[in-house]
Amino acid sequence: MTDAATPPFTTRQVRLRERPVGYPDDSTWETVTEQVPAPGPGELVVRVSHISLDPAMRGWLNDVRSYLPPVGIGEVMRAGATGTVVASEHPAYAVGDAVMGSFGVTEYAVSDGSGVTKMDLDVAAAPTWLGALGMPGMTAYFGLTDVGRVQPGDTVVVSGAAGAVGSVVGQVAKAMGCTVVGIAGGPEKCAWLTSIGFDAAIDYKAENVLKRLREVAPKGIDVFFDNVGGDILDAGLANLRRGARVVICGAIASYNETSLPDGPRRYMSLLVFRATMTGFVVFDYEDRYPEAVEKIAGWIADGSVVARETVVTGGVDAFGSTLLGLFEGTNTGKLVLALEEDGRGVTAG
Amino acid sequence: MTDAATPPFTTRQVRLRERPVGYPDDSTWETVTEQVPAPGPGELVVRVSHISLDPAMRGWLNDVRSYLPPVGIGEVMRAGATGTVVASEHPAYAVGDAVMGSFGVTEYAVSDGSGVTKMDLDVAAAPTWLGALGMPGMTAYFGLTDVGRVQPGDTVVVSGAAGAVGSVVGQVAKAMGCTVVGIAGGPEKCAWLTSIGFDAAIDYKAENVLKRLREVAPKGIDVFFDNVGGDILDAGLANLRRGARVVICGAIASYNETSLPDGPRRYMSLLVFRATMTGFVVFDYEDRYPEAVEKIAGWIADGSVVARETVVTGGVDAFGSTLLGLFEGTNTGKLVLALEEDGRGVTAG
Repeated sequence: MTDAATPPFTTRQVRLRERPVGYPDDSTWETVTEQVPAPGPGELVVRVSHISLDPAMRGWLNDVRSYLPPVGIGEVMRAGATGTVVASEHPAYAVGDAVMGSFGVTEYAVSDGSGVTKMDLDVAAAPTWLGALGMPGMTAYFGLTDVGRVQPGDTVVVSGAAGAVGSVVGQVAKAMGCTVVGIAGGPEKCAWLTSIGFDAAIDYKAENVLKRLREVAPKGIDVFFDNVGGDILDAGLANLRRGARVVICGAIASYNETSLPDGPRRYMSLLVFRATMTGFVVFDYEDRYPEAVEKIAGWIADGSVVARETVVTGGVDAFGSTLLGLFEGTNTGKLVLALEEDGRGVTAG
Repeated sequence: MTDAATPPFTTRQVRLRERPVGYPDDSTWETVTEQVPAPGPGELVVRVSHISLDPAMRGWLNDVRSYLPPVGIGEVMRAGATGTVVASEHPAYAVGDAVMGSFGVTEYAVSDGSGVTKMDLDVAAAPTWLGALGMPGMTAYFGLTDVGRVQPGDTVVVSGAAGAVGSVVGQVAKAMGCTVVGIAGGPEKCAWLTSIGFDAAIDYKAENVLKRLREVAPKGIDVFFDNVGGDILDAGLANLRRGARVVICGAIASYNETSLPDGPRRYMSLLVFRATMTGFVVFDYEDRYPEAVEKIAGWIADGSVVARETVVTGGVDAFGSTLLGLFEGTNTGKLVLALEEDGRGVTAG
């Protein structure tokens, strides 16, 4: 990163070199140095502080029709990020503004302002704006309330529970008066979940999830919020309650598979339990983000929601390895890549 | 069957001898002769004319928790049926009344009247009361309207389209102003579907369903009504339209499998298309059957719905082989076993 305060100067950025088959590796990415021009009319230039690592990124690398177009070969890798405006010819943004947006894996980004929002660092530090107050938090909130139609007293089970979305799902459900069970990998994650208020946590690496769910949710599951897919989704389907809502948020277990994974073998449970399985994409709720931010910020302020991030340093060069870590489950809470040495706005993971 | 007009006399009936593994066979059933007593207070005796053959019967033979308890070893096989009251000590039923109910695979049944309804043979013959005006018709109507939330102009695709439920689904959807595509096995069934008004029919035995759906439903599927499961469900999932409703009615392709079948590998399409997959059981709509009967009877009267049955003769002894035929797809429309030589109320298949 250069020391220049205003452009033109250079930025390093990570581009998609070739589409991965299975897990991304070094051949997937190339890091290039580009010139950052002075902003044109209606543009702003952002110095990126933190980059969001999301499971959905893996899907964006595949050349298939989906809810967003794939990242093109040679394009800067798409990523949510936070940063500071360092130059602006945009009427809504001034130098020094703290902002978030889809800036990509880059040190500096030029933007026309679309999809850019200001963030209040007095409410929370930048990594939290990528986590509980960012896309994962929005995903948790709308997935639970709008898609899952959660009600006080419901039994809510969430997979990937120690992740960015799952940890907020569980805490929001608790704040709404539900009984909450989290499924996560390893004793540390499970201990953390119960420490932040989950009624029970199941370690899928050590326990039989199907049997344990029967024990900890004896009345059955009202809302199963799935981030994982595979056998864990099946274990949930086997333990539904009549009228249950299964929320399909993601399937991290299969994102790096080279063929279509097995589907949920127990999907006929939907019939037995008169249940619904619904998929959603958080971007559809963009108009309502302020509602969710206000709610979650309130729960963070009163201690109902603990926002946790795992912050990795190393700059854009560390992007590829950090993304792999996401699929290995190295993170607890939101996984964030910090670009700035001073760690400004960084909450220790 | 005896010629006696009033009990006591004997009845032959089919009982569950042992639970089948895979397809039922001769060892599954035993035919026994029982004494039919004179009715006690509040009871009626029905001479059964027609027995309904339903894919769901296979599930009732498994010793697993489901929407109905399994048929017990030694119990008369559960079956919907039509017949005539031949003796009655029940205030609501008189000798000669035409009735339908869950009488089982038996020549005569003693009933306390629960679940028994009268049928009007002027509206339709008895086999139709087991088909378009019976459980399959109710399943089609409520699955489409209540679960599938069908709207005029929707593209509706139904699998098992030439079956008892599927053929009514397609015709009701047409009557409601939808574009309708049926998936069925073989050219005869497909030709029949287009002859009764389906906009297109796909022969899954000869065609690539996934590709053909893309051709005949280029805007995508709004309602996919699934009776089959397996690859056909996946082909539907790959061709949804945004906001689609997938109605899980059955999975005949897997009912005789000895292990859990593969699930829908493309279930993540639910996320891409913001779609919902919902299971249901028709018995939940029992209170609203009269609404559906009135609607469907109206459509039969005005020619919008053609009620078709495949009627097999041979008495209760033919039950086992007739049930196997259901899973081999021998029937077009509703499969019914006739017990009476005179064929009273029988519509030729």
